[in-house]
Amino acid sequence: MTAMRGGGQFRAGLGGELLSEFLGTFVLILFGCGSVAVAVAGLPGSGRQETPFDAGNWLIIAFGWGLAVVFGVYVAGGVSGAHLNPAVTLAFAARRGFPWPKVGPYWVAQLLGAFVAAALVYALYAPAIDAFNAANNIASRDQSVPTYAIFATFPAEYFNGGWWGPLLDQIVGTAALVGLVAALIDNRNQAPLSNLAPFLIGLVVTAIGLSIGTNAGYAINPARDLGPRFFTWIAGWGDLAFPGAGPWFDNYWWIPIVGPLIGGVVGIVVYDLFIGGVLAARLARPPEEREPTPEVGRVPEKKRS
Amino acid sequence: MTAMRGGGQFRAGLGGELLSEFLGTFVLILFGCGSVAVAVAGLPGSGRQETPFDAGNWLIIAFGWGLAVVFGVYVAGGVSGAHLNPAVTLAFAARRGFPWPKVGPYWVAQLLGAFVAAALVYALYAPAIDAFNAANNIASRDQSVPTYAIFATFPAEYFNGGWWGPLLDQIVGTAALVGLVAALIDNRNQAPLSNLAPFLIGLVVTAIGLSIGTNAGYAINPARDLGPRFFTWIAGWGDLAFPGAGPWFDNYWWIPIVGPLIGGVVGIVVYDLFIGGVLAARLARPPEEREPTPEVGRVPEKKRS
Amino acid sequence: MTAMRGGGQFRAGLGGELLSEFLGTFVLILFGCGSVAVAVAGLPGSGRQETPFDAGNWLIIAFGWGLAVVFGVYVAGGVSGAHLNPAVTLAFAARRGFPWPKVGPYWVAQLLGAFVAAALVYALYAPAIDAFNAANNIASRDQSVPTYAIFATFPAEYFNGGWWGPLLDQIVGTAALVGLVAALIDNRNQAPLSNLAPFLIGLVVTAIGLSIGTNAGYAINPARDLGPRFFTWIAGWGDLAFPGAGPWFDNYWWIPIVGPLIGGVVGIVVYDLFIGGVLAARLARPPEEREPTPEVGRVPEKKRS
Amino acid sequence: MTAMRGGGQFRAGLGGELLSEFLGTFVLILFGCGSVAVAVAGLPGSGRQETPFDAGNWLIIAFGWGLAVVFGVYVAGGVSGAHLNPAVTLAFAARRGFPWPKVGPYWVAQLLGAFVAAALVYALYAPAIDAFNAANNIASRDQSVPTYAIFATFPAEYFNGGWWGPLLDQIVGTAALVGLVAALIDNRNQAPLSNLAPFLIGLVVTAIGLSIGTNAGYAINPARDLGPRFFTWIAGWGDLAFPGAGPWFDNYWWIPIVGPLIGGVVGIVVYDLFIGGVLAARLARPPEEREPTPEVGRVPEKKRS
Repeated sequence: MTAMRGGGQFRAGLGGELLSEFLGTFVLILFGCGSVAVAVAGLPGSGRQETPFDAGNWLIIAFGWGLAVVFGVYVAGGVSGAHLNPAVTLAFAARRGFPWPKVGPYWVAQLLGAFVAAALVYALYAPAIDAFNAANNIASRDQSVPTYAIFATFPAEYFNGGWWGPLLDQIVGTAALVGLVAALIDNRNQAPLSNLAPFLIGLVVTAIGLSIGTNAGYAINPARDLGPRFFTWIAGWGDLAFPGAGPWFDNYWWIPIVGPLIGGVVGIVVYDLFIGGVLAARLARPPEEREPTPEVGRVPEKKRS
Repeated sequence: MTAMRGGGQFRAGLGGELLSEFLGTFVLILFGCGSVAVAVAGLPGSGRQETPFDAGNWLIIAFGWGLAVVFGVYVAGGVSGAHLNPAVTLAFAARRGFPWPKVGPYWVAQLLGAFVAAALVYALYAPAIDAFNAANNIASRDQSVPTYAIFATFPAEYFNGGWWGPLLDQIVGTAALVGLVAALIDNRNQAPLSNLAPFLIGLVVTAIGLSIGTNAGYAINPARDLGPRFFTWIAGWGDLAFPGAGPWFDNYWWIPIVGPLIGGVVGIVVYDLFIGGVLAARLARPPEEREPTPEVGRVPEKKRS
Repeated sequence: MTAMRGGGQFRAGLGGELLSEFLGTFVLILFGCGSVAVAVAGLPGSGRQETPFDAGNWLIIAFGWGLAVVFGVYVAGGVSGAHLNPAVTLAFAARRGFPWPKVGPYWVAQLLGAFVAAALVYALYAPAIDAFNAANNIASRDQSVPTYAIFATFPAEYFNGGWWGPLLDQIVGTAALVGLVAALIDNRNQAPLSNLAPFLIGLVVTAIGLSIGTNAGYAINPARDLGPRFFTWIAGWGDLAFPGAGPWFDNYWWIPIVGPLIGGVVGIVVYDLFIGGVLAARLARPPEEREPTPEVGRVPEKKRS
Repeated sequence: MTAMRGGGQFRAGLGGELLSEFLGTFVLILFGCGSVAVAVAGLPGSGRQETPFDAGNWLIIAFGWGLAVVFGVYVAGGVSGAHLNPAVTLAFAARRGFPWPKVGPYWVAQLLGAFVAAALVYALYAPAIDAFNAANNIASRDQSVPTYAIFATFPAEYFNGGWWGPLLDQIVGTAALVGLVAALIDNRNQAPLSNLAPFLIGLVVTAIGLSIGTNAGYAINPARDLGPRFFTWIAGWGDLAFPGAGPWFDNYWWIPIVGPLIGGVVGIVVYDLFIGGVLAARLARPPEEREPTPEVGRVPEKKRS
């Protein structure tokens, strides 16, 4: 491959990791935002719904985003570790020795991948979006909250514009994500083998979607939200994306950035306080004094019947 | 980590196991009760339903609780064995050599984890709960059965307040859970390898939700029910939680405690009578007399075509 | 365990295998018929539906039966090979060297396990069934087709009472099941390792439910249908179960027995004709003449880029 | 087996691979088109819907096709590599060293398998199809778009007959499929072990169905579309299948052929540009200069807490 030879030096180093974060985040957004597009505007009949998020659509979205993570991680895992999320990168820098100088470049690659994928989702679904707006008598995109929801997130109306509820939601959701990723890759614990961690990591996001998803759309990832948000700002949704004459969620844009960055660190600290520290303390003891671990799978010989 | 050094002795022993049971049960309740919150009050449109448990919502709940178990077990498995359920702890003490003196401390840690997680679910969804009650003209929480269902369980109306039906339901459900856990961690049988037992154990709970879930909400775990029940008692649902002026399910609270404790032991005894005892009897024979096991995966050479 | 010592000789031989087939089929029917009970009569609101099998309910049933197979196989796999189905036992006797003298005892154990599990499902859901009938003004059980559907199968009305369509349906469905089981346990092919075959085998049944399930309820297993059918005959559904004054599906009872027995053998013969024979022919060649297998996972070194 | 002996030479070579591609594609179409038949015409109640693709039905279809791929690949993987798709065969010839002379025979085998399976789906569901048409007052099959959708694909009405939108849809969908297959079988990356790649490859198709499926039915496979299309042309759907007096999707037939063939190559080239090339560039360096891979699962010793 000619291109490889020219860029070999670049690719073998940080450049390759950034290509990997770009493509992994691209896959994440293509499948993830794509699944919201299917639920909102793609399915026949969805164009006639006032609130497009009923239980059936929510299952499409929850499994759509979960599988989006599964395959984003399978694509990028072997090269860059598949963070695909600035909050993961930050938490791994703070608590897992990921090099701080790489944090900025990773963030940029993730954001670019999300932006370009949002543009592709738009290219695929623009006719469906226009048909949805026409069927619902929505005159212009910047008044079309349901189609805006394909790309970026916003809080439920019941928060009445408050910022604390959605911020807590983003902190808790991201803490759950990053704390569980820490568990799933910790070989002292029960990390899945046979290269199946990406499958389980994706299911974490399905679990979050099913349980912490409806308050504010479970961005739990600054790149996932900000990249597509920039795209919608350019592509006609305007004031819905950033402060202006938007609806009840005006001025929300910073919450899915700040919340996840805090939440990711919180999640990994909690994991280390409750689990990681215990495993380390056990390993620090001389082997003959260690508490025998009653782990899943252990059936004591003496009591077998 | 400073905290680790100070508490190293504590953490390396029983203390670490209790931290692990706490956090694992916390994850279980956060995702599990969270998924009911999504189905009942989180999804747009759900606030307008009189009975919030249609098939779509039930799928959210069944997969939500299943994944809750998956990740609770992945978090805690390597430290405490991830019982996350007093019925599991009791059954393992009775039949698998788990030390009896640890049973009480495990139960307390599980109950505390469930209580604290219920409080967090409440912190996340209080605005959604209030909006649900307002939309359905429910004046106070202690009259709001659907939002109470986010946290604790109660039997279907068709039991007409009888206790035997729900008790049998809890015994059978928990026997299925613990009997299958016994199968999934029995290396003489076909226990999943590659650290994938937690994934399958979680799917057991999905299976129970899909098949033995609607009679009484499949608590099948005293901590899962009692911890959030205490929380609702404090947080305004009052008489719905414990005997008082509650609706048809008044005086139900003891059933998801007693039923699972009985059922867990029943399940593991049944497993041992039908399967564990057979495997032991085979292993007790001299190898040359053993029945060749026609296990899944065996294709006899001679008949291959 | 005292019981074990007394019955050790029995259990270590064929007796243990029969206990295993009994319990595995019991788990299969408990979860499988249980999931239909949830869809038909358990969920609030389901009692008000005239046709209880909409898409959401069908997903509950398809995943319910799939997981029922997963865990039935995990329970019984290490002792008896987890046939759980007379059609599997027959096909393995005909084509995989399973001893013919064991076929009859296996069939009896499977049938008994299914019958007892149907009785337990009834014990759990009798109040729900009665409430369903009352809500739908159904005077007696032998006129209640939807609740009969919890236990045994019948063909869609659009067959107009014909037998060929449903029989073909049962042959094709069971051929798909047994042919794919043959693939999933064939170590010359790509049989899943890490003891994960039971998980994939269960998903075969989910796939069949989603694609070949609605013509006649995808019994694809004589024990699964006949055991619960006997139970309903005793428990009040009467003429719906066996020829009498039943509705359009009168005289259907033999089809989910004969169809699967034929279909299982067809499936394994087709697998051997198209795949098993090819693998055997390859292995019969001297190694240096063998066609290099372009299997999934092989990336030729020379073309890697 | 007598047949094996006679055809041993044939089967051990290319003939065996073609049998394998035939059977694998047959399984794919039997389960895949079968799941659409269930959603459109099989489920009670579906016959009364004007647009049969609501969210619940779409979940049946997305999981139906995903599992169809899982088991098609498990059947054929060990013999022919389980392409099951002319676009995969072409892409592997162009970029992974699959022998060009085999491309044509593989295509023919895939197309035949798809055609025969479509005929079997028709044999199973003809009564359901006729009942659907009767219930919806559709006079003849060539006016029945919903039942045509069981077999072949067509674009959404919102494309207004344009060809670019659907073509882009097919290119992107197939690029996602083949690019991710390339990732999932690349042992330098994180290819699943324990023979679980077929499971994950099937989930790729579920992900595509949930996210890129509603524009034009996600054929993403020329054989999957053309084989059943030929069948419908013969079996009474006539002008819906090929140009004639069809509805808005007249003249669409070539797009699910050309689009996937382009998309498959695009997908594998993109994978190699962003990931494959990076992995190759790393391996080309002397070991002591290689960038340490921060892969999923790596927890640096020094920072463990």
